[in-house]
Order: sequence, then structure tokens, then C-alpha cells
Amino acid sequence: MSTTPKPVSKLVEAFARLPGIGSKTASRLTYYLLRRGPEEAQALADALANLHGGTLFCSICCNISESDPCPVCSDAARDRTTICVVEEPLDVQAIENTGAYDGLYHVLHGHISPMDRIGPDDLRMAELITRVKTGAVKEVIVATNPTLEGDATAMYLAETLAPFGARVSRLALGLPRGGDLEYADRVTLAESLAGRRAL
Amino acid sequence: MSTTPKPVSKLVEAFARLPGIGSKTASRLTYYLLRRGPEEAQALADALANLHGGTLFCSICCNISESDPCPVCSDAARDRTTICVVEEPLDVQAIENTGAYDGLYHVLHGHISPMDRIGPDDLRMAELITRVKTGAVKEVIVATNPTLEGDATAMYLAETLAPFGARVSRLALGLPRGGDLEYADRVTLAESLAGRRAL
Repeated sequence: MSTTPKPVSKLVEAFARLPGIGSKTASRLTYYLLRRGPEEAQALADALANLHGGTLFCSICCNISESDPCPVCSDAARDRTTICVVEEPLDVQAIENTGAYDGLYHVLHGHISPMDRIGPDDLRMAELITRVKTGAVKEVIVATNPTLEGDATAMYLAETLAPFGARVSRLALGLPRGGDLEYADRVTLAESLAGRRAL
Repeated sequence: MSTTPKPVSKLVEAFARLPGIGSKTASRLTYYLLRRGPEEAQALADALANLHGGTLFCSICCNISESDPCPVCSDAARDRTTICVVEEPLDVQAIENTGAYDGLYHVLHGHISPMDRIGPDDLRMAELITRVKTGAVKEVIVATNPTLEGDATAMYLAETLAPFGARVSRLALGLPRGGDLEYADRVTLAESLAGRRAL
């Protein structure tokens, strides 16, 4: 006999549709919320309901934002001649957290992946080309992930942006700070050799 | 600069309050829902908002249910002389799934744990004692977890229910079916030796 009430199994199913959450975790979360009382479940429900209504895409950099243009694009103090191209909004925050970059961004919302049938037209690529074509952009830093798909996206960008005169660069590959040579994987070690810098 | 819109960071925080979900996973889930569009976020929000309103505790077995009494307690075909005592509602479903039990249940909603200051009064213990005292209960099967706390709860139940004449039993400990003797832990192997059965 199924002893699970419908509101419970419905929430379990909804949680289990999220990536990386299996049915066991979904059950655990649901019963946790049941035990905690309605306030916590309602707080999460409200945050979910407000997610899309309160956000939009910045019409310049395509990042998710509360305002258009977004705070970065409308900040007069930032260097408007440099654009850092990333795959996802979270990558923008990661680079901001370094405190080492004061240019603008462009969020592609994905990467080129022939395997998954994602081509340039499925990304915010046209918006970037327009920006580079019409703006006074001197350098485009491609900060896609160091993966096969990130590489493919970077290659495509380098080719496509070549006619517009801006320098196209890519984030350095190498050993992570605090890492151990002994435990570095072969490919990373080879990349860091190839990218060695004069002291 | 923080580039995260408020509705996004609010949902990240709400997800991160759930057990086992750290801030990285919370971000990943939030941006996943942002990409998927408002329908999926709203479906999850609705399931959360309906969780508590649609459920109650069965006044007999204390399981979470849509109706009172719950489907198990109101099923005339079930053996009313046996009560299986479990810690959580999910345990009821686990035992139902075996198809090997047709008695009633009692959900304690936790276990005795002096370390966490959880005593019998914090559990649905009084309700169980009333059932055993007044009902025609012949056997109470204690199906608490095979942990220190589950053991403590079982010991307490055995003592407390002794005056009422019902037999109190506990689930067998031993090797899991399909397991390998070589990889069984010492304690489990010792338990399965102590609990050996005549062939």
C-alpha cells in the first residue's frame, strides 16, 4: 500500500526533477520541510515564485540582472574597451570576486557543443559580435571553461571576431595555486609547461 | 561588485538552508531554474505551498496522511493485533514495500537521543502506550534503526510496554542479502553469529 500522501509525493517529484537530486534526497528534503513547519516551506515557495518576475537579461552583456543595463554595464568607472566573455552568470561573479578585473562582461549562456547540437545561434553570440563591431573594444578575453566545449567556443570566437581588430585572448591554463606538481594531471602539467613565463 | 540580482541570491539562500545543500549546489539549482523558465519554478513553489495544508497526522498511528485515520489504520483487512514501531514516515513506506507485513504501524517521529536532549516526551510515545494499553495488541515489532539511538529507543519501549502483556520484538540484525562475508563489518558479523537460526 502506498502510505505517502499526495502533497508529499508531489513535492518529492518536483524536487527530484532538479539536477543532481535523486528520489532519496528529494524524499529527505520533503520530510525535512514537513518536520520544520509551514514557514520554511513557504519561504522557499516565495523565493521560487519571485525568481523570474524580479530578473531580466541585461540588453548589453546578457547577464541576469534586476535592472537594464545591469550594474556593471552602467558603471561609468569600468573600462569599456575590454570585454570578458563567460559561459554562465555565475562565472561573472567568480571573476568579480578576484578583484583583478575592471572591464565589462558578456554572458553567452552556454557553450558550443556539436554533441548536444548547441551551435553559435543558440548562444548570445550575435549580441557579442554587435558589441565588438560597433564599440571601441580593444580586447576580448575569452573566459570559457577549460573543457572541450569551452575550447570550441573560444576557437569560434577567435575566428569570428578576427575581422574587427580587437585582440582576442584566453585565460591561462596551468597549475592551480597551492596545488602539488606530483598530483597534477598530465594534460594540465603539459599546458603549464607550454605556457611557461620568463622570470 | 556583486552581480547577483536579489531574487537570485534570495533563492540561493533558501535552497542553502535545506540539509545537505551547500551554497554551490544552491547556486547551481537556482541558475538551473532560471534557465528553465518560470513554469518549473512555479510548479516547485506550488508543491511547497501545498505541503502542509494538504497533510495531517493520523490520530491513531501518527503517520503523515491526507485523511484521518490514515489509509492503513482504516483498512479493515489489516491485522490489528500487531503494531510495527518506526522512527519516520519513510520507514512505513519501506516496510510496506516489502509486502511482508500486514499489521498496523506507529510513527515515533524520531528516536531517543540523550546527546541531542530528545527524550520519550519529545516523541509520539504516549500515543503508542495508550494504543497498547487499551487495544487488543498481541505484538509490538520495534523497527527503529540499528543505531545507538534506535537501540536506546527499543530498550525504552521494551521496558515501558512490558506491563501490558504484548510481546515486544525487534527486527533481526545480520548480513544484508547479496552481501559478502569478507566485506561485512565486525559488529554486523558478530550480530549475525549471535542471531544464527537453525536450518
